[in-house]
Amino acid sequence: MPSFGLVHWLDLVAVAVAAASGAFAAARKEMDIGGFLFVTTVTGIGGGTFRDVILDRPVFWVARPDYIVVCLSVAVVLFFVAHRVEQRRALLWADAVALGLFSVVGAEIALDTGAPALIAIVMGVMTATFGGIIRDVLCAEVPLIFRREVYATAAAAGAATLVALDALGLGRPVILLAGFAVAFSVRGLAVALRLSLPVYRRPGERSGG
Amino acid sequence: MPSFGLVHWLDLVAVAVAAASGAFAAARKEMDIGGFLFVTTVTGIGGGTFRDVILDRPVFWVARPDYIVVCLSVAVVLFFVAHRVEQRRALLWADAVALGLFSVVGAEIALDTGAPALIAIVMGVMTATFGGIIRDVLCAEVPLIFRREVYATAAAAGAATLVALDALGLGRPVILLAGFAVAFSVRGLAVALRLSLPVYRRPGERSGG
Amino acid sequence: MPSFGLVHWLDLVAVAVAAASGAFAAARKEMDIGGFLFVTTVTGIGGGTFRDVILDRPVFWVARPDYIVVCLSVAVVLFFVAHRVEQRRALLWADAVALGLFSVVGAEIALDTGAPALIAIVMGVMTATFGGIIRDVLCAEVPLIFRREVYATAAAAGAATLVALDALGLGRPVILLAGFAVAFSVRGLAVALRLSLPVYRRPGERSGG
Repeated sequence: MPSFGLVHWLDLVAVAVAAASGAFAAARKEMDIGGFLFVTTVTGIGGGTFRDVILDRPVFWVARPDYIVVCLSVAVVLFFVAHRVEQRRALLWADAVALGLFSVVGAEIALDTGAPALIAIVMGVMTATFGGIIRDVLCAEVPLIFRREVYATAAAAGAATLVALDALGLGRPVILLAGFAVAFSVRGLAVALRLSLPVYRRPGERSGG
Repeated sequence: MPSFGLVHWLDLVAVAVAAASGAFAAARKEMDIGGFLFVTTVTGIGGGTFRDVILDRPVFWVARPDYIVVCLSVAVVLFFVAHRVEQRRALLWADAVALGLFSVVGAEIALDTGAPALIAIVMGVMTATFGGIIRDVLCAEVPLIFRREVYATAAAAGAATLVALDALGLGRPVILLAGFAVAFSVRGLAVALRLSLPVYRRPGERSGG
Repeated sequence: MPSFGLVHWLDLVAVAVAAASGAFAAARKEMDIGGFLFVTTVTGIGGGTFRDVILDRPVFWVARPDYIVVCLSVAVVLFFVAHRVEQRRALLWADAVALGLFSVVGAEIALDTGAPALIAIVMGVMTATFGGIIRDVLCAEVPLIFRREVYATAAAAGAATLVALDALGLGRPVILLAGFAVAFSVRGLAVALRLSLPVYRRPGERSGG
C-alpha cells in the first residue's frame, strides 16, 4: 500500500462527507438499509472513481479498502441518527464541504499525473460533481447542479485557484487550503444568500421580462 | 483468446439472463427493435463492464465478441416471443437469476486479481446490480434496487458466502454454487414472500406509526 | 502529443457538433451558464470517453486539451446566440451530424486497436449514442434514442458500412466518408420523414390493432 500523505487524508475526509450527503438523500427518500448502504457508498466514491478511470490510475478504493469501510460506517450511523438533524440543510452543507475538498484533491491528483492545467481543473470539477449527480439520479431528484445554483462553478473556482497557486510555486498545504477555501466560500455563499448565475432565457421571455 | 473455464461459462449464462431481463423491460416499454437491441445488450454487459474497468482488466466482451452475439440474439428472439410470457414476473425471475450468477462471478474475478475480501464483495454487488440499474434508468423506471426489496443485500450475501468459503480453502465449483444458492435464495424469497428490510422513517412518521 | 490525422480532425468536429447539441438542450431547459458549460462539455466528450475507457486507450481529451477548449467555446457562444435559431430542429440536426461522425470515428478507432468487426460496430454505436443519452438523462428528457425513431440503427448502419468497406481494402478517407453518408442519411431521412422501426406491442394491443 502506498503511504498516506496530506492529499489522501483530505480525500478520505471528502469521501466520508460526500457519503454523508448520500445518506441524508437516502434518508429523505426513506430507503431501506440496503438502499441506504448502496447510495451512501456510491455517492462517496463515485466522483473519484470516474477521475481515476479517466486518468488511467488504479481506482483509489480498490487499492485501499478503508474507503469502503468509511462509507459503510457513515451509512450505518446515519441510518440511526439522521432523523436528529434537519436533513435538507445537512445535505446542502455536507455537499458543499465535499464539493470543496474534492475540487482541490481532484485537481492536485491530476497535476501529479502530469496533466495540463485545464485538464486538472476539469478533473477537480468532475471529482466534485459526479458523486452528487449519481446520488441525485439514483434518488430520482433533479441534480443539485441544475437547480440554478452556483455549483460546478464553485468547484471550478477552487480547482483553478489551486492550479494557479501551484504554478506560482507555493507549497502543497497552502494551495490545497486556499483552493478549498475558495470553492467552499463560493458554494457556501451561494447556498446562504441564494445567489444564482445568469440563466439562459428564451426569446419570448426576454421581451416579457 | 483465453481458454474458457467454469467462471467464464457462468459469466456467459449470467449475461444472457441479464440480457433477457433487459428485453422484458424493453417489451414492457413497447420499444422499437433498435431500442430493444440497445437496452438488452447494455443490461447484459453493463455490470461486468464496470467491474472490469474498475479492476483495470481488459473489458470481457471486447476480448470475446460472443457476449455481444448472445445479447443481440436474446433481444431478437424475445422481440418476437416476449408476449407469450407474463413479463412482470419473467423480469423479476430473470433478474434474480442474473443477480445470483453475477454476484459470485464478480467476486471470484476480483479475488483472482488479488483484491482483498471486502473489495471482492463490493465487486460482486456491483456486477450484480449495475446492469439492472442502467436498464431501469434507461427505461425511466425506479430502479428495482430501490423498491424496498431485498436486492443489493442478496448480492452481498452471495458474494460474502463465496469469499468466506474461498478463505476456508474450498474448491471453485463448490464456492460458486454455494454463493449462487445463497444470493438466489435470498432474492427469490424476498420476491416470493414480499420480504423487506427495515426502512428509514422520518421522525414525524415514527410517532405516527 | 500525437500528430493529428484525418480521424482526429473528424473526431474534433464530431465533438464540437455534439457539444452544440448539448448546448441546444441546455438552452431549452433554460439552464444557467454553469449548467450550460457542464452539459455542453459532457455531451461533447461523453461518447468518446466511454469508447476510450472500454478499449483501454488513453482518454482522448486528457491527452489533448483542445477538445475541452472547443466544448467550452461552443457553450459560451451558444449561450448568447442559441435564441436566434429554432432550438428543437437545431438540436435534431446537430445530433444527426454528430451521430454520423461519431459512428465512423468510433468504429475506425476500434479497428485501429485490432478489435474484431462486431466490436468495432458496437464501438461506433456506443461513441455515437452515449453522449446524447447522458445529455438527455441530465436534462431529464426521455433519451432521443427511445423516442421510437431510427437512431442507434443509423449509427450501426454507418459503422457497419465502414467496417465492410475496410474489409474490402478501400482507403481510409473513402470508408469514413461512405460510413458517415450512410449513418447521416438514415438518421436524416428518419427525422425528415418521421420514419420508425417495428415496435414491440403487447398481446392485448395486437388484437386491438
